[in-house]
Amino acid sequence: MIDAQDTAFMARAIQLAWRGRYSTHPNPRVGCIIAKRGRILGEGWHERAGEGHAETRALSQAGPAARGATAYVTLEPCSHFGRTPPCARALIDAGIAHVFAATKDPNPAVSGRGLDMLRDAGIRVTEGVLAEDARKLNPGFMKRMETGRPYVRVKIAASLDGRTAMASGESQWITGADSRRDVQRLRAISDAILTGVGTVLADDPSLTVRRAELGDIGLATEPARQPLRVIADRDARTPVTARILHGGNVRLFCSSEALATAPAQDLSALGVSLSGVSWKTDGVDLGELLDFLGELGINELLVEAGPTLAGAFIAERLLDELWLYQAPVFLGSDARPTARLPLATMAEKVRWAVRDRRQVGEDERLILVPS
Amino acid sequence: MIDAQDTAFMARAIQLAWRGRYSTHPNPRVGCIIAKRGRILGEGWHERAGEGHAETRALSQAGPAARGATAYVTLEPCSHFGRTPPCARALIDAGIAHVFAATKDPNPAVSGRGLDMLRDAGIRVTEGVLAEDARKLNPGFMKRMETGRPYVRVKIAASLDGRTAMASGESQWITGADSRRDVQRLRAISDAILTGVGTVLADDPSLTVRRAELGDIGLATEPARQPLRVIADRDARTPVTARILHGGNVRLFCSSEALATAPAQDLSALGVSLSGVSWKTDGVDLGELLDFLGELGINELLVEAGPTLAGAFIAERLLDELWLYQAPVFLGSDARPTARLPLATMAEKVRWAVRDRRQVGEDERLILVPS
Repeated sequence: MIDAQDTAFMARAIQLAWRGRYSTHPNPRVGCIIAKRGRILGEGWHERAGEGHAETRALSQAGPAARGATAYVTLEPCSHFGRTPPCARALIDAGIAHVFAATKDPNPAVSGRGLDMLRDAGIRVTEGVLAEDARKLNPGFMKRMETGRPYVRVKIAASLDGRTAMASGESQWITGADSRRDVQRLRAISDAILTGVGTVLADDPSLTVRRAELGDIGLATEPARQPLRVIADRDARTPVTARILHGGNVRLFCSSEALATAPAQDLSALGVSLSGVSWKTDGVDLGELLDFLGELGINELLVEAGPTLAGAFIAERLLDELWLYQAPVFLGSDARPTARLPLATMAEKVRWAVRDRRQVGEDERLILVPS
Repeated sequence: MIDAQDTAFMARAIQLAWRGRYSTHPNPRVGCIIAKRGRILGEGWHERAGEGHAETRALSQAGPAARGATAYVTLEPCSHFGRTPPCARALIDAGIAHVFAATKDPNPAVSGRGLDMLRDAGIRVTEGVLAEDARKLNPGFMKRMETGRPYVRVKIAASLDGRTAMASGESQWITGADSRRDVQRLRAISDAILTGVGTVLADDPSLTVRRAELGDIGLATEPARQPLRVIADRDARTPVTARILHGGNVRLFCSSEALATAPAQDLSALGVSLSGVSWKTDGVDLGELLDFLGELGINELLVEAGPTLAGAFIAERLLDELWLYQAPVFLGSDARPTARLPLATMAEKVRWAVRDRRQVGEDERLILVPS
């Protein structure tokens, strides 16, 4: 039986887990509550890889009082030694009597083992309280564990007439300062940001998180982690002077042939990680690219690219969400499209479910899901 | 001094005036309240041209009790004999002691005369209660009286990537049934609907008001008036079999040369009114067209046309409102643009103020005003 108090404690554990929003990568966001007879004895959340897990932090706050208490965890406790000892073991050793777990570990290789370890030690286990809300903490971790690929968000800033730049390439600024600040938060929750060499050459973006623009993000520690910057660049044309290369943490995907060329070696000498992947006539093999990023531990990928790369994600249905920022302007019919997406009949149209729609300054932000 | 009760009675008069939403053309929507010592004695609104004005209907409901009462009218009472005797005279004859008028008559030739007639008869006159709200009753009548041109609404149904049809012309249906019903109401408040011959040839629309689709519109009488259908068609190419010609009430604007041709004479024989206007290389002279429609008594014009005609209204800033229905779909980058609008630099972009934004079924409806 799950009563209202159990649900409340799990809601609090989920809220705590969100504190790791910008920092747990490549680990999942996890929260934990230790409670006994309606009183919370310990609260914990995972902050960053290599540091304490949510359960151990909550247990250490609770101390010896944890004996006979109930634990509420947003994700099944781990059963294996990673960078820290298994949390299931810690719960057992602390004498926890009952564990509520909102979701199972999504990794098929270990899913259920943590809960089994608890049961084997005589602990009562209840699964599934606020499971939907707990899953939303970790769309990327969940998807990567289940499919090997990151959760993909494509961001597009467009006019109301669906244009992303003038024919000349001029595009600063279509959307307003509030939208650009919102994109900063989107970058900060992302493990990696993907762009194409066309955007690098045209706009020379840095694609960094500017801590000052995030506002109050509830982060205990500063500065926010910088996501990995990823460039799809078949011929390794990215100039060594490009802003995106500053500050390091960059990976460039080119063709295998380009890897051996002088430009690639110059980039490598600068500290850029280069990898060869397959290319099709119209661009990089996105499936292969996503598999690669999944292997690198990328949970949440943000695509900030031009119409060609953005269009490829849409055409191949390889995105999970489209974040469309619409400014209340028209850029006219000669301007560049929202996405390069050649369709001939209404039957081929891409249909979106609107997951969220809100005003951001003078713009509107839509979160769209292919349907 | 205007007290809260005066404001309330004027609000009621405005509410009554809205009952004429679909029917007063070419007259304005007007409401009237007759009240004495806080009690409403009579309510009236104008329903259609040639029938009783708001004031005479309210007075007739009040009867002899109107002597010494106060009248609340949304528009300055007329001072001239039109199809009915002047309302100012009727208010005087009924012995009204005080008249609140929300707005002056916008016609520069008569503005203020009705109020002067009242004052000359010893009636106290107070102007300007809820003036903004009263003006909104009659954007078209106000604009036509002030400028000689109708109030112009351009309606566009587009995808989220700013496309209005596939390259082939296929466009049924981008938006959903709720949006199409909403457009029915938009047509019903319009005095005329303008389209181009390109749309007639491609889609063969009827552009009529289908009473059944209006839902509960608070109309006392049925059926709703059919707006004048207007076609911009330089060479009088509209086929005599076109659906838009069914049911009559059609005016076609062509070049003066085309007036004498056989196709024009065939259309004329069908009962279509033809008028010659000037044409420029990229289309009809919109200013001349709007002047002409103003002379015809068109207060509110709805433009339901293709990207070329819609784009011309936007480029020349000759529209008052853009009604943009956005469906949650992408039609792709080969599809037709929102509007034909050739702009080269960001500095030329068209900036809109969002007057209203609401969900209509699965679509979003934006009412945009050039800013």
